[in-house]
Amino acid sequence: MKRSLGVCYYPEHWDEAVWAEDARRMAEAGIRWVRIGEFAWSRMEPAPGRFDWHWLDRAIATLGAAGLKVVLGTPTATPPIWMVEKHPDMLPVDRHGSPRKFGSRRHYDFSHAGYREECRRIVRLMAERYGRDPHVAAWQTDNEYACHDTVHSYSDAARAAFRDWLAQRYQSTDALNRAWGNVFWSMEVTDWSQVDLPNGTVTEPNPSLSLAFRRFASEMVVEFNRVQVEEIRRHSDAPILHNYMGRVTDFDHFAVGADLDAASWDSYPIGFLSDRIENEPERKQTFLRQGDPDNQAFHHDLYRAVGRGRWWVMEQQPGPVNWAPWNPAPLPGMVRLWTWEAFAHGAEVVSYFRWRQAPFAQEQMHAGLLRPDSEPAPGLLEAAEVAQELERMPEIDLAPAPVALVFDYESAWAWEVQPQGRDFDFWRLAFAAYRALRRAGLSVDILPPDAADLSAYKLVLAPGLMRLSDPLREALARYEGLALVGPRTDTKTEELAIRVPLGPDLPGLDARVTLAESLPPGAEVPLENGGRFLHWFEHLEGDAPVAWRTLDGRPAILGNGRVRYLAGWPDDATFDGIVRGLCAEAGIETLDLPDGLRVRDTARHRFVFNYAPEPLPWAGTILIPPAGVFWESR
Amino acid sequence: MKRSLGVCYYPEHWDEAVWAEDARRMAEAGIRWVRIGEFAWSRMEPAPGRFDWHWLDRAIATLGAAGLKVVLGTPTATPPIWMVEKHPDMLPVDRHGSPRKFGSRRHYDFSHAGYREECRRIVRLMAERYGRDPHVAAWQTDNEYACHDTVHSYSDAARAAFRDWLAQRYQSTDALNRAWGNVFWSMEVTDWSQVDLPNGTVTEPNPSLSLAFRRFASEMVVEFNRVQVEEIRRHSDAPILHNYMGRVTDFDHFAVGADLDAASWDSYPIGFLSDRIENEPERKQTFLRQGDPDNQAFHHDLYRAVGRGRWWVMEQQPGPVNWAPWNPAPLPGMVRLWTWEAFAHGAEVVSYFRWRQAPFAQEQMHAGLLRPDSEPAPGLLEAAEVAQELERMPEIDLAPAPVALVFDYESAWAWEVQPQGRDFDFWRLAFAAYRALRRAGLSVDILPPDAADLSAYKLVLAPGLMRLSDPLREALARYEGLALVGPRTDTKTEELAIRVPLGPDLPGLDARVTLAESLPPGAEVPLENGGRFLHWFEHLEGDAPVAWRTLDGRPAILGNGRVRYLAGWPDDATFDGIVRGLCAEAGIETLDLPDGLRVRDTARHRFVFNYAPEPLPWAGTILIPPAGVFWESR
Amino acid sequence: MKRSLGVCYYPEHWDEAVWAEDARRMAEAGIRWVRIGEFAWSRMEPAPGRFDWHWLDRAIATLGAAGLKVVLGTPTATPPIWMVEKHPDMLPVDRHGSPRKFGSRRHYDFSHAGYREECRRIVRLMAERYGRDPHVAAWQTDNEYACHDTVHSYSDAARAAFRDWLAQRYQSTDALNRAWGNVFWSMEVTDWSQVDLPNGTVTEPNPSLSLAFRRFASEMVVEFNRVQVEEIRRHSDAPILHNYMGRVTDFDHFAVGADLDAASWDSYPIGFLSDRIENEPERKQTFLRQGDPDNQAFHHDLYRAVGRGRWWVMEQQPGPVNWAPWNPAPLPGMVRLWTWEAFAHGAEVVSYFRWRQAPFAQEQMHAGLLRPDSEPAPGLLEAAEVAQELERMPEIDLAPAPVALVFDYESAWAWEVQPQGRDFDFWRLAFAAYRALRRAGLSVDILPPDAADLSAYKLVLAPGLMRLSDPLREALARYEGLALVGPRTDTKTEELAIRVPLGPDLPGLDARVTLAESLPPGAEVPLENGGRFLHWFEHLEGDAPVAWRTLDGRPAILGNGRVRYLAGWPDDATFDGIVRGLCAEAGIETLDLPDGLRVRDTARHRFVFNYAPEPLPWAGTILIPPAGVFWESR
Ligand SMILES: [Zn+2]
Ligand SMILES: [Zn+2]
Ligand SMILES: [Zn+2]
Repeated sequence: MKRSLGVCYYPEHWDEAVWAEDARRMAEAGIRWVRIGEFAWSRMEPAPGRFDWHWLDRAIATLGAAGLKVVLGTPTATPPIWMVEKHPDMLPVDRHGSPRKFGSRRHYDFSHAGYREECRRIVRLMAERYGRDPHVAAWQTDNEYACHDTVHSYSDAARAAFRDWLAQRYQSTDALNRAWGNVFWSMEVTDWSQVDLPNGTVTEPNPSLSLAFRRFASEMVVEFNRVQVEEIRRHSDAPILHNYMGRVTDFDHFAVGADLDAASWDSYPIGFLSDRIENEPERKQTFLRQGDPDNQAFHHDLYRAVGRGRWWVMEQQPGPVNWAPWNPAPLPGMVRLWTWEAFAHGAEVVSYFRWRQAPFAQEQMHAGLLRPDSEPAPGLLEAAEVAQELERMPEIDLAPAPVALVFDYESAWAWEVQPQGRDFDFWRLAFAAYRALRRAGLSVDILPPDAADLSAYKLVLAPGLMRLSDPLREALARYEGLALVGPRTDTKTEELAIRVPLGPDLPGLDARVTLAESLPPGAEVPLENGGRFLHWFEHLEGDAPVAWRTLDGRPAILGNGRVRYLAGWPDDATFDGIVRGLCAEAGIETLDLPDGLRVRDTARHRFVFNYAPEPLPWAGTILIPPAGVFWESR
Repeated sequence: MKRSLGVCYYPEHWDEAVWAEDARRMAEAGIRWVRIGEFAWSRMEPAPGRFDWHWLDRAIATLGAAGLKVVLGTPTATPPIWMVEKHPDMLPVDRHGSPRKFGSRRHYDFSHAGYREECRRIVRLMAERYGRDPHVAAWQTDNEYACHDTVHSYSDAARAAFRDWLAQRYQSTDALNRAWGNVFWSMEVTDWSQVDLPNGTVTEPNPSLSLAFRRFASEMVVEFNRVQVEEIRRHSDAPILHNYMGRVTDFDHFAVGADLDAASWDSYPIGFLSDRIENEPERKQTFLRQGDPDNQAFHHDLYRAVGRGRWWVMEQQPGPVNWAPWNPAPLPGMVRLWTWEAFAHGAEVVSYFRWRQAPFAQEQMHAGLLRPDSEPAPGLLEAAEVAQELERMPEIDLAPAPVALVFDYESAWAWEVQPQGRDFDFWRLAFAAYRALRRAGLSVDILPPDAADLSAYKLVLAPGLMRLSDPLREALARYEGLALVGPRTDTKTEELAIRVPLGPDLPGLDARVTLAESLPPGAEVPLENGGRFLHWFEHLEGDAPVAWRTLDGRPAILGNGRVRYLAGWPDDATFDGIVRGLCAEAGIETLDLPDGLRVRDTARHRFVFNYAPEPLPWAGTILIPPAGVFWESR
Repeated sequence: MKRSLGVCYYPEHWDEAVWAEDARRMAEAGIRWVRIGEFAWSRMEPAPGRFDWHWLDRAIATLGAAGLKVVLGTPTATPPIWMVEKHPDMLPVDRHGSPRKFGSRRHYDFSHAGYREECRRIVRLMAERYGRDPHVAAWQTDNEYACHDTVHSYSDAARAAFRDWLAQRYQSTDALNRAWGNVFWSMEVTDWSQVDLPNGTVTEPNPSLSLAFRRFASEMVVEFNRVQVEEIRRHSDAPILHNYMGRVTDFDHFAVGADLDAASWDSYPIGFLSDRIENEPERKQTFLRQGDPDNQAFHHDLYRAVGRGRWWVMEQQPGPVNWAPWNPAPLPGMVRLWTWEAFAHGAEVVSYFRWRQAPFAQEQMHAGLLRPDSEPAPGLLEAAEVAQELERMPEIDLAPAPVALVFDYESAWAWEVQPQGRDFDFWRLAFAAYRALRRAGLSVDILPPDAADLSAYKLVLAPGLMRLSDPLREALARYEGLALVGPRTDTKTEELAIRVPLGPDLPGLDARVTLAESLPPGAEVPLENGGRFLHWFEHLEGDAPVAWRTLDGRPAILGNGRVRYLAGWPDDATFDGIVRGLCAEAGIETLDLPDGLRVRDTARHRFVFNYAPEPLPWAGTILIPPAGVFWESR
């Protein structure tokens, strides 16, 4: 498949006189796609029912005339002030009960029916007007669902909708009381109006309630998005996407993705390194201007799964951003590296955010491809270089990966509700497993929790799945490769109670978790051959053979057939040892890579990326410079 | 006295079919007591005025039939949702003014008159029904007063009750203005309605107001508890207890205890090490699976004082808990060690929390004596071992301790209101003194602040008592042993003003504190022979002889007669030197113990406990294993 | 000019019987000024409209009879409770929307019109009564504006006043939308009622709005103060002052100062070291009992500028305070040192806070010149020593400083709104520059941001001025000395947008900032000869010569004429090198001082202060003891 570049553009920010020149320069740089419209509601509908589409007509026409394909965004992430005046109760409410006010973005509650209908209305009008426009080649719904912690709202609207949802799910309060164990602490209810949202209790609320609220909130996002998809589909055949964010687990992306044609995400490697990745300070220092060497790849692979193979980078960091705790500039070459890495993982389009740095408002310190004075910023030159390389490059097609990692949003919620230890979560564990695979030079596919067929993979990792889906349990039973599950896997019921008989219930594996320990920083469980568990350790019982032991003789990995259960959270070196051992057993070739070098295999190429700030050797004879991208035929 | 074991049980959590088997297994394990009922209001009274006692009748009968004695808890810590609907203003309110909602426990304001009457009603009904039941051998009021920071509520109910309380105490606003120095910053009031709770002021409120609020809040707990005691006493002769928590100073336990027959507390050594004890990280690491080696003993001795000699452990940690920041499992043997240590300090009963781990709701990750699947958890085996040892053990009777430590809740409030330095409080100072005594191998009695007779002790420590009670002042005047008081002792009035003439006013000691300094971490006042003060240093003046000096020649300890005043907060080694010096002078034998070994003397035995994770030598020839308990005749 | 001492006194706190004796002892100690009245509203007007001036009459008469000159404070920082009952909406509201309650001080919103009129009323009455009193020789308005974060209030009163202020400033919402770039994120408004205060938005609000709110809030302080000045001036010729605090940037002190006759500030060297100065912990340790060696001087110089040459220390720390995180006592001699340092910087009066330590209420642990029992505290002896030295000292007149530093409150707001990196602000940068000058032994003048004449100085530093005023830009164009500006200087418009064409726009300097980076702790930009930038680095472009480069060849300082642009935030050693290089070029003599020694030149003397805890050598032959003050003729 031929991959291409895009850019995010805000015609409403600029004098109409420069649009044509901007479009010309985009095209000249090799850009093929331009995303517009997603924050422009106050310009489309300046007052309730009063519309102005003309400027947008002209913008699309101008961009199209330059040969650009338009991604048209729905503006529902930024309802105008008149909307809030019309629906004062549409504002999301924080966990302390304070409404979160107008004045920035995402100031709406996903469960507010009135606002949802307003969104249906504006999207219908856009779809009617632009659904058949030849320049509109794709759609984006809303913008970055969940950003700024907006999935969990404690509003009256949310409370009412949650009660309806519970009534639907449990049918009777008796059933709910039983399902949640409300007899504990006299929490039993006799009327739906007695169930409240899980904020503000004296001490922690019932974890089953907390999990139910997360499920509900996730479904509200799915429903909110579906309304827009329905309206667009009525009038347009162009693919519909949403731009997800990094390390967001507040809603089930697989469920939202099921309604869309492709996934996309907003990749800010340096911002994310700063504000959402756990790393020792020295390691953050090393990758300060490059970003974590695995975080982009992880999300590429995750969103490829969410998009069922089709995905984009909708926003690619092109220089320093404004929103992280600190905002250094990328190392020269990194914009190119990030772009190539996305393509190597299968991105159809990599679209930079944004064309010209806005000199005003919240993101004025966020770099663009152009400076505020319209001169080229460093990112533009690197983007143009990629465009030229793409021209010369044979098509990039994906190859099947030898290993898969299962990722499950519900498990993330379950860990969040019931961490049992302060400093870890499901995402971090899944990412730790992913990193170990990457350090071994492996290309990875990520699978949803209901994956029903594992046969394409020699090795499957499924750490931390608190509950196992029926399809996955059955797939594991049929599976002939090697699977590593645990810790915490299959130890809980759908309602987040402990499974009795004790889990896991895995095919051919007699093992159960009798007790779980969480460990503070500094504490560890040493293993018999030098490794160690951090954070978490489970006491296992069962007849399954012990594949690896703790130093004091307890099971660290149980099982010798096709399914192994991992009793703890290995540190990086231990995870490396585990992964390499499993690969050797499964017949998967691994690599010894210097830290910072990462590899990705496509159908015809092996790509090598140097995230390190110094040159690193590859294949004995080649020295890849910092931020260097190298590829060779396979 | 013959000591015995108990367990906490929740018949309402389990199918009635398993009750008898559970009871049988308890008895078989050597358990003699079973606590029930304390969270079951929604099952006793499912709707207002609609009662169901039958299940409880049957539960008591079933347990009693197995030979178990029942501790019946009042369910007032968990009012059902209909109660909150009936009294919406009964919810406690946090310092930001937000009500703390239904959905967990302790969701009531101690000063709410309506809820207090509801509690009287349910307790009366329980007492009427079970007061003469032969199986009900003890009562527990409510559960863990103060837990989850519920003593200080800023509700309308609290505000109104506080104003009444003030009017009663001060009789006129003029008197209140004078007592508090309200002329400062024009804070004078002319009507009781003008006095508000001490939350939300622009900068700190008047410390006299803050102290008055703490006094008021403590009295509300006393009154709340007294209502229940009154109702139970009318119908039952069984002893009444309450289960206190660890390191709680929000109410005066001596005052609550005065209405009860015995004290009890909930001992979670590993949880408390994690969430409420100051220790260097490495030290926490060392005792990660054992708990702080002095914290249990301190509370045992404190609650023995609160119970006027009679006390229990009502809840003993049996394995990992769920609520601390991290929750490791105890070292094998620790459940036995903790139990024996409690008996050595005089516990009549040690009762484990809980029988079977609940697979549902908030505490599902909290271990029990049984696993959720009813198999024995490690704690059960250790409990059974203790039960057998108890059988063989001659009776354990208490011996008088050579040293006493005075503990005063009002001083804790005064330090909290007026810490003058960020990282220290009264409890920490008292515990520092206690630890020094324990490191010297001493058994300790804790005394209330109004102790009127010290003659049983050769040495009394009374650090940090901001105000000296009249009885204690007189007792000190009569005292012929050695007393060490200070820092801060007797420097304040009842209203938390500075005493003028400057305090302390101690018998035969001409000394006054002219100035107090608080010191940040890292700062110290070096003493002349190698010791040092941290946190706090007072400039003393007076004719009393100087027993110890700072390196620059100022008094560090004043007084050479029977009362000494300590001018600062000694570090551990300095405290050791002080304690050993005083003991030598007072003719008290001290021991040199390796760190982790602790000693407790009873009438007939010397008990030695090894809290260290490695074996430690005792008496030259004996090696006590980790978690080991050793006893020898005295 | 002959300098003199003062003290703060609260006759309302003491029995009238001791006033005369207090006054006599003040005079005896050499004190000439006494400040009274500033918290006594509840005694002046115990009920609305009911006044009692007699006690104040007698207090003034008694103090005056002892030869003391009275500074009369207006009591508007502590409105009595009846005032709050009369104007419930006068309370300031925190950023979460909670009113900040009565019960301490500063519980008013600067923008509340009703309270402002109440202040006008009480001040008018005071001015009428005491305006011609021969003993009232100066006035103080209110007390410590901004203390306890009270400038930014989110009350209804503030919201309404802000909307009026915006309407006045922008005239139309269209203009406001354009000025702020509200098209971004559909934030456009069509009615003033749609503009809200910048708290509680989902993510950050528009920085232009945030800056406008800070401007508005600062003007409210100016207006609030002006009302009082107007009333006093009508009846009194005595100078009017306000007592500012340390490191407060929430309002424009130059603007408030323009209405006053002199500035004053409250100098708490040890408290401020503890709670508001960035220093490594070891350095804080070194200066624990002395205070930061530059912080007092900085504020002396700043407030000399604010007072247009006339300034006092209104409150001088005399011993330990009560309000810092930790409160150690000063090193013996420091009270004298601080006093002399203030005089050397031009203080007309240094007034100690307070005469006698109050044994009651919030500040009971705050030392005074007397102890609570009326005995002399250490500070009194040092004050008396200074008084005697002053007698013998020839007059102290100021000399022009060779270097100036520009300080700009608006830039502080702009940095606060848009830090772009978490741990730094404008004040910190300005202070870093000031410290470098002081380490070089230089006396410094501080200039306001609209300084129109720089000709008195050989060197001017203007770091971090986000916007350059027209007068300063013109002064720079005319300037013949050396000026160092940057980083961030002149890169923004008045509305906090990025300047296009890119700034700075400096005379004779072709340079522009194309990109800015913020750097986390540990990250640095190394410079070519060993120095380094921390926190901040700008990419510069332009034809101006490069005076200093980064290690990788980018401009670190641009310009070789009279104006240089600094591209980053130098660490201390680098700043030393830059300052010494510029001084050498400008013909300014610098000194090599041991750390802790500081120098200040007046017309006739060179003063040397030893802030170190050990003796330090001066001029080869002299050893200045800790806390020592040395002066020699120039
Ligand atoms: Zn969330
Ligand atoms: Zn509290
Ligand atoms: Zn502020």
